[in-house]
Amino acid sequence: MALESSLAALSIAQVSGQEAAATKALVFKPKTAKSATPVPVIVFALQSTSTPSNLIASNAGVKDPRLAKEDLVQEFFGVSPKEFSVANITKDHAGKIKVLVDQQIQESSIYELSTESSKAAVEGKSLLGFLQSTGVELITVDFSAAPAPTPASAPAKKSKDSAPTKNNAQLEDAKLIGVTVDKFLDFPGWYQQILTKGEMLEYYDVSGCYILRPASYAIWEAIQKYFDERIKSIGVNNAYFPMFVSSRVLEKEKDHIEGFAPEVAWVTKAGSSDLEEPVAIRPTSETVMYPYYAKWIQSHRDLPLKLNQWNSVVRWEFKHPQPFLRTREFLWQEGHTAHLTYEEADTEVLQILDWYSDIYQHLLAVPVVKGKKTEKEKFAGGLYTTTVEGYIPATGRGIQGGTSHNLGQNFSKMFNISVENPEGADKPKLFAWQNSWGLSTRVIGVMVMIHSDNKGLVIPPRVAQNQAVVIPVGVTAKTSKEQENAIYDGAKEIENRLKKSGIRAIGDYRSNYSPGWKFSDWELKGLPIRLEFGPKDLEKNQVIVVRRNDSKKYIISLDDLETKIPEILDEFHESLYEKAKESFDTHKVIVEDWKDFVPALNAKNVILSPWCGVMECEEDIKDASAKKDDGEDEEVDEKAPSMGAKSLCIPFQQPELKPNTKCVRCGEKAINYTLFGRSY
Amino acid sequence: MALESSLAALSIAQVSGQEAAATKALVFKPKTAKSATPVPVIVFALQSTSTPSNLIASNAGVKDPRLAKEDLVQEFFGVSPKEFSVANITKDHAGKIKVLVDQQIQESSIYELSTESSKAAVEGKSLLGFLQSTGVELITVDFSAAPAPTPASAPAKKSKDSAPTKNNAQLEDAKLIGVTVDKFLDFPGWYQQILTKGEMLEYYDVSGCYILRPASYAIWEAIQKYFDERIKSIGVNNAYFPMFVSSRVLEKEKDHIEGFAPEVAWVTKAGSSDLEEPVAIRPTSETVMYPYYAKWIQSHRDLPLKLNQWNSVVRWEFKHPQPFLRTREFLWQEGHTAHLTYEEADTEVLQILDWYSDIYQHLLAVPVVKGKKTEKEKFAGGLYTTTVEGYIPATGRGIQGGTSHNLGQNFSKMFNISVENPEGADKPKLFAWQNSWGLSTRVIGVMVMIHSDNKGLVIPPRVAQNQAVVIPVGVTAKTSKEQENAIYDGAKEIENRLKKSGIRAIGDYRSNYSPGWKFSDWELKGLPIRLEFGPKDLEKNQVIVVRRNDSKKYIISLDDLETKIPEILDEFHESLYEKAKESFDTHKVIVEDWKDFVPALNAKNVILSPWCGVMECEEDIKDASAKKDDGEDEEVDEKAPSMGAKSLCIPFQQPELKPNTKCVRCGEKAINYTLFGRSY
Repeated sequence: MALESSLAALSIAQVSGQEAAATKALVFKPKTAKSATPVPVIVFALQSTSTPSNLIASNAGVKDPRLAKEDLVQEFFGVSPKEFSVANITKDHAGKIKVLVDQQIQESSIYELSTESSKAAVEGKSLLGFLQSTGVELITVDFSAAPAPTPASAPAKKSKDSAPTKNNAQLEDAKLIGVTVDKFLDFPGWYQQILTKGEMLEYYDVSGCYILRPASYAIWEAIQKYFDERIKSIGVNNAYFPMFVSSRVLEKEKDHIEGFAPEVAWVTKAGSSDLEEPVAIRPTSETVMYPYYAKWIQSHRDLPLKLNQWNSVVRWEFKHPQPFLRTREFLWQEGHTAHLTYEEADTEVLQILDWYSDIYQHLLAVPVVKGKKTEKEKFAGGLYTTTVEGYIPATGRGIQGGTSHNLGQNFSKMFNISVENPEGADKPKLFAWQNSWGLSTRVIGVMVMIHSDNKGLVIPPRVAQNQAVVIPVGVTAKTSKEQENAIYDGAKEIENRLKKSGIRAIGDYRSNYSPGWKFSDWELKGLPIRLEFGPKDLEKNQVIVVRRNDSKKYIISLDDLETKIPEILDEFHESLYEKAKESFDTHKVIVEDWKDFVPALNAKNVILSPWCGVMECEEDIKDASAKKDDGEDEEVDEKAPSMGAKSLCIPFQQPELKPNTKCVRCGEKAINYTLFGRSY
Repeated sequence: MALESSLAALSIAQVSGQEAAATKALVFKPKTAKSATPVPVIVFALQSTSTPSNLIASNAGVKDPRLAKEDLVQEFFGVSPKEFSVANITKDHAGKIKVLVDQQIQESSIYELSTESSKAAVEGKSLLGFLQSTGVELITVDFSAAPAPTPASAPAKKSKDSAPTKNNAQLEDAKLIGVTVDKFLDFPGWYQQILTKGEMLEYYDVSGCYILRPASYAIWEAIQKYFDERIKSIGVNNAYFPMFVSSRVLEKEKDHIEGFAPEVAWVTKAGSSDLEEPVAIRPTSETVMYPYYAKWIQSHRDLPLKLNQWNSVVRWEFKHPQPFLRTREFLWQEGHTAHLTYEEADTEVLQILDWYSDIYQHLLAVPVVKGKKTEKEKFAGGLYTTTVEGYIPATGRGIQGGTSHNLGQNFSKMFNISVENPEGADKPKLFAWQNSWGLSTRVIGVMVMIHSDNKGLVIPPRVAQNQAVVIPVGVTAKTSKEQENAIYDGAKEIENRLKKSGIRAIGDYRSNYSPGWKFSDWELKGLPIRLEFGPKDLEKNQVIVVRRNDSKKYIISLDDLETKIPEILDEFHESLYEKAKESFDTHKVIVEDWKDFVPALNAKNVILSPWCGVMECEEDIKDASAKKDDGEDEEVDEKAPSMGAKSLCIPFQQPELKPNTKCVRCGEKAINYTLFGRSY
């Protein structure tokens, strides 16, 4: 029932012409045994009140409350979460739900109830009276009470605005405090916190631009080294082309520029003078480079030409920016090659894609699916696009991880990149077959979103700036000075031995912090392992190693230090990868019937469906899947509250397509299985 | 005598109201024995006629004509080269000079004679009649005759405009043809040619921007690797800050921004929308970074903070651009560090400067002088600037090679980068001591200008993308197929053995080019050594190694290949360095008297003079040395035809300053020896 009719039915009078305070009503489902009937907890509070989940838990006397899914809200209240308000509570709910009421809601004020489709202002007195009349359990809560202080039991924050609330602002200053929002309750808030508190990234005063601090730039350097060695092995050379492009050149290839034009940044002034002709900042370098390819390539002996650059490009997005994932300037590599034959170009496209996949799997411990983009999603102006696609479990969304394009001869014909026919000057000249391929700092965001947790960052060992931290422990007031020195010296020796053996180790010998504080601090920063060295370890010639992701402990003899630590790091990498792989595999579901499509999507899956390959059908799938959103994702990306499913790729590895299989959406003949999903 | 009075004295009538063709009159001094009296060659030609020195040489029957210096012109004609015109020729010159007259100068036309201070239009008939009347040797020359074709005997081009003349344009197309201009006659033309023909750099369609091709980018990568390892060893971390700056932040430090404001590029549009607030592209990152330093640095435990970035910056210069030396976008590294004490900052400034000097000396084989900038030349907003200064023999100009600044506490006070006083919270807070230091791709330009020659680039082995090329030789029509195969196989084996031993070797097995053509081709590209392998070498189990810079030959046994080649490369590095060092040492002259200052400058020296340290005196030196220019440099940089001497640095290594030594210019007490020079 809609809000207004609910109110009318309840005989609650609406008021008008007065200032009303905005409120929110949220339905939480506590953790219960699977067989038990859940008792939902309703939180009714001022919109501006932060209602962390630990306070909900402690006041309602429940465990691990999470925002309820659509089916639960429907079942209990007969409306979707978006249309839910306290006016949906009835006497039938007595004994079946609990209601937490913000103590700031008073009889004497006016409050605005709102759902997605309507709003109503009512008196506090009527509201509270009505709630009491239903007979449900009402608990008044002071949500301004301080949340718990340690990172490990981090309080969750559920707030519409990503700006820090008063409580958070106080916490920001306290170095002791770790992540204060829950990854699964407020994913964007969590993401922002772990990046900034983990000292990986800093927000910058030009919107959409971010500072890559050493912890993230070191990851990029590890990727650069890995990829650079490989592309050089196939004869790719690095070069640097200017960041500026004239409009004449930029606009030469029509399909291509159409894709980028709205995002191109223009320099129109230098000092106080207007430029005669504005120049663009490259959004990508196809048109920057190809006029010179045309100049340099004259004979078939000039082919192949294989250049790569490590640079930054600018795409002035007006959408909601997100660190690493959608930024106005980003770092990447862009490779641009020209070949004599289609086959040679084709081989390279796939070789590069394999290396992109290797970067995800072997460096970042992230599983990806390799495949080809549909016509709709391919690089504008190219022949075909291959891609590696990842999956973010927390949001259930797919993410494009890197693309390798075969441009065909489209650009070479446009820019006249051609050679004399080796079979004779009288034969027609040959246009080059071109590729371009790019991988950006987005990879870092994907890695963070997948592995990190409520304690902070989790950084896979092969890209971590620091792989291990050594911390002296067990020093108390009773410890003798000699023993304290022996422990510190022992820890330092461990650090030095690790460094000598090529492990990126550091030691934390700060005397003004407790070991526990240090543990949390390094967990926040995501160091793969910590080594604890105390009196017992000194005695037994051993050290305790604790893994960041799951706190798994190893006791290793110091005699084995140099051999065991690399093993533990490799094991750690594998365990991260396996966990992420399992999550991806579990959430990559095959759907043959359209009726299962949107529910599967809403259950945070990506979907492999038989598909007809027709662009209009793809657009239809997007539209049809957008409207059925259950609203839970609305906190994830405010600009995409009811995002439809896009095609992610046509995976190279295909389920068997049985004869006469029909397209999941339109019922026409399916030509392959295509991976669909909500996507970044 | 001025032009007009000369003409009047000669009874040559001036004409007016008619179109007059511009002419030029140049005085050349051929190469002669030192004891012999020189016979100057005067070239009188249309301004638009290109008058290459090989044509001057062949028509005048002289060797190696070069533009005469001021003293010679003064001696013969009583005027400076800038005031010289054919009207200065008299009967007294008969038998003492030769005059080459452009055959395009005809009796029937009107010509404009010009000197720096005046112009006059006269009839061709009067002019030619007058010249004949003086009795000097007149030779009519067809300057449109083609220049010599081979790279080794490259024809010289002496032309006011840097655009290629008709002749050159024809040559550009022919791949066989190497450098066509002489380094010492047309330095900018030569520089452009060796960079582009050596495939190091390409001109780009946005003015002031250039493409760094693999041959130059590889040099930058070698420098990056070298420097990156060193700064990381002292705890510097790499990071990446955005390229955009808001005007509010950019303009925070007044002195600093004043230095950059006229060159700042502004983005005012994205797509077709105007930005609400324009954003600048960083010209350097002090103001980009320091607001965040203020945020990150709270306690003395947060110090030192040492960050570096490898990025590009934009300075929209309106002066004449020059590849590597003055470009609108350039690559560099910029280090920015903050320290608790002045001493710590000071130590780092000098450590970094040493590494800059090492990059020049140990990688690029370029000698530099380390020193401190004067107050006038220091980094705006900083405390003091240290610098490495190089010397370009061909132009006799100094060049700033890299700077390491101690910024003092100026920026930290402006941006509030401060920490609590470790001695107690009641004590005043401490502002950080900051440094910034940068080295740019300019180093590549310096290296090229110093080592390269009329055959093309000369690249020092430690930075060369390819260090050695193996070329099969001695295969003729008479060579048996077996022997040919044996030679090619042998060459390939040499290439592979070199590669395995870590030498960056390539092989040139192209069958459609002669060995001689290949030699020239690789000389043009500046490869440090070539290895020639022919029938005799096959027989004797040896290979011939030829050094790029001086064609020095080594015959080495193939048994010693892996040990000898690295030795030869090191020897090559040393020989390049020694030659450049000798040239710098010879042209770094001590001048105590002002009367010797400008002549020394004009003789392509940099000058070490006792100096008072007063800024006004420094400006006076610049003014006073500018006006006495002899005009020879005017071809070097059209925008700086009569450039005065700037202070380059106050060298750390000082000659002994005797008591009561006076300032070279103002006569006040000198406080040190300062290095002055015309400069880039």
